[in-house]
Amino acid sequence: MLRGHQTWEFENQPVILSTGTVGGPFEAKGELADDFDLLHEDLWLKQDSYEKAQKVLIEKSISRAIEKSELRNEDIQFMFAGDLINQITPSSFASRTLAIPYLGLFGACSTSMEGLALAAFLVNAKGAERVVTAASSHNAATEKQFRYPTEYGGQKPPTSQWTVTASGAAIISNVGDGPVVTSATIGKVIDMGLSDPFNMGGAMAPAAADTIVAHFRDRNLPPDHYDLVASGDLGEIGLPIAKDLLKQKGLDLPEDTFQDCGLMIYREGQPVLAGGSGAGCSAAVTYGHLLNRMKRGELNRILIVATGALLSPLSYQQQETIPCIAHAVSIEAGGGMT
Amino acid sequence: MLRGHQTWEFENQPVILSTGTVGGPFEAKGELADDFDLLHEDLWLKQDSYEKAQKVLIEKSISRAIEKSELRNEDIQFMFAGDLINQITPSSFASRTLAIPYLGLFGACSTSMEGLALAAFLVNAKGAERVVTAASSHNAATEKQFRYPTEYGGQKPPTSQWTVTASGAAIISNVGDGPVVTSATIGKVIDMGLSDPFNMGGAMAPAAADTIVAHFRDRNLPPDHYDLVASGDLGEIGLPIAKDLLKQKGLDLPEDTFQDCGLMIYREGQPVLAGGSGAGCSAAVTYGHLLNRMKRGELNRILIVATGALLSPLSYQQQETIPCIAHAVSIEAGGGMT
Repeated sequence: MLRGHQTWEFENQPVILSTGTVGGPFEAKGELADDFDLLHEDLWLKQDSYEKAQKVLIEKSISRAIEKSELRNEDIQFMFAGDLINQITPSSFASRTLAIPYLGLFGACSTSMEGLALAAFLVNAKGAERVVTAASSHNAATEKQFRYPTEYGGQKPPTSQWTVTASGAAIISNVGDGPVVTSATIGKVIDMGLSDPFNMGGAMAPAAADTIVAHFRDRNLPPDHYDLVASGDLGEIGLPIAKDLLKQKGLDLPEDTFQDCGLMIYREGQPVLAGGSGAGCSAAVTYGHLLNRMKRGELNRILIVATGALLSPLSYQQQETIPCIAHAVSIEAGGGMT
Repeated sequence: MLRGHQTWEFENQPVILSTGTVGGPFEAKGELADDFDLLHEDLWLKQDSYEKAQKVLIEKSISRAIEKSELRNEDIQFMFAGDLINQITPSSFASRTLAIPYLGLFGACSTSMEGLALAAFLVNAKGAERVVTAASSHNAATEKQFRYPTEYGGQKPPTSQWTVTASGAAIISNVGDGPVVTSATIGKVIDMGLSDPFNMGGAMAPAAADTIVAHFRDRNLPPDHYDLVASGDLGEIGLPIAKDLLKQKGLDLPEDTFQDCGLMIYREGQPVLAGGSGAGCSAAVTYGHLLNRMKRGELNRILIVATGALLSPLSYQQQETIPCIAHAVSIEAGGGMT
């Protein structure tokens, strides 16, 4: 199962049985609106706080995934979930509603692939028949906690990213058809000494490059193995830096193979500065848009590299630099997808 | 591997190769002082913030565990860690220092056994040869974040608990000798509608009882299977409630079998109100005191039930009740321990 230093290969073909993706009003106007299962016009989702709204996003994405595979909550044995809010309360409160044995994760925006890696590992090793994993973010809840309430109308520099309001969930199983989760590479914390929380893409790029290189090395893959390597989320600043770093490290991915979930989700003209971010971005883009493209036969082998900036407002105030991490999971078109 | 609804049995005998336990000044005066590897007289650990002090606790506990088994950092393939601080920065910053591929967890005080369960699963399923897991807490960092800075001298009711300043780490391996991790039961979130953050033990007791009952049911064990069932941390209020709930559910553990880590760690007369708590409490008590007792032959089979209150200061302000969880891991004396 362990391959090389930090990669697991899943020989028992755990599949993504079904997914659920839920987005907010800004995502409804975005490039990938058609790929969401459910879009909300109201950022509050009829709740009295943004954190409660985020909880509802998670609940709905998981319920939708469960419905689509015609299962009940009791059929799901474990739930891996996490988010950016202090003490990951939206995920934990959603888990209370769903009543599924629960393992809470924190990996900032890398949580999506941390959860998928662990869910696939568990199913592959027969620790479960069906596991659900979810990652989410909410623009206003995140802005309030990490920066200022959006009502203040604070200005941000063009290097900063727009936190996506979305939740993406996937059910992983060892029976049934669907895209196959073939491997996962767990990243190390990389910190190049950057400390600007308005340039997370730049800070996270070295972690993304480190994990991608480790993945190709551990699995001994040629650079053209994947149709798409999608980071989540480096944005306009981070993506070219990561591309340069890969070249420096001698990994020359084919032109246009390396893209970013945060640059896919919005339309040109939406005021999202350097692109989307947030734990829900890579989850929703992967479980919605990218798997839809796989179902249509446009993609056969993809590698999702979810990147997390593991800072807190307090660590920034205490003049710490930003420790970053990236986890990569490979997904391949399965037999049942044609 | 999956047994019953929510339990894993580890047939390949993952062992606890070595452990590291580090405590603070209050723990140095406690009942279990002799069971710590390292005790600090200074709550600051020569750092300029309590959060940085907590990071050093984690680093030292992991380094001590690695030294004791005569390994180097590079020999450890993965690290599972978490704590109570926003965005678990002490764990993530410690992981930066150690440069081990890292999976961040959040389960409040249940993090210790969430980490041990996942580490043992990984090693048992040959996803790694050696994994380190750590959980920690720091009294002053936690008080500042969840309540008030300790310098304010705020009063607390007698039902509240004292956050332990400690980190406990364990290296899990599929080679070598040591206590064997035999099984783990992952809990569901249970919320009985309590909302008083100064009575966490009472809030967490139903989650502990639910997981203990699930564990005995899934493994089909007689009530006297374990020499010790240790919760972490229900304290003086929660422990008798959990005992009553077990009796109501028909699980009659032998007299004195069910104890609490938070009631073991301090000496009578220390002003800890209803007892110790914090993610570092059950980690340090288990990896220090309880495994020492196992080595001396006083205990053969133990079940550690780490309980977490998954609230945040914000969820409390938003009038949410406290969602609680408990994860149980069983440890048995191994061949190399006699």
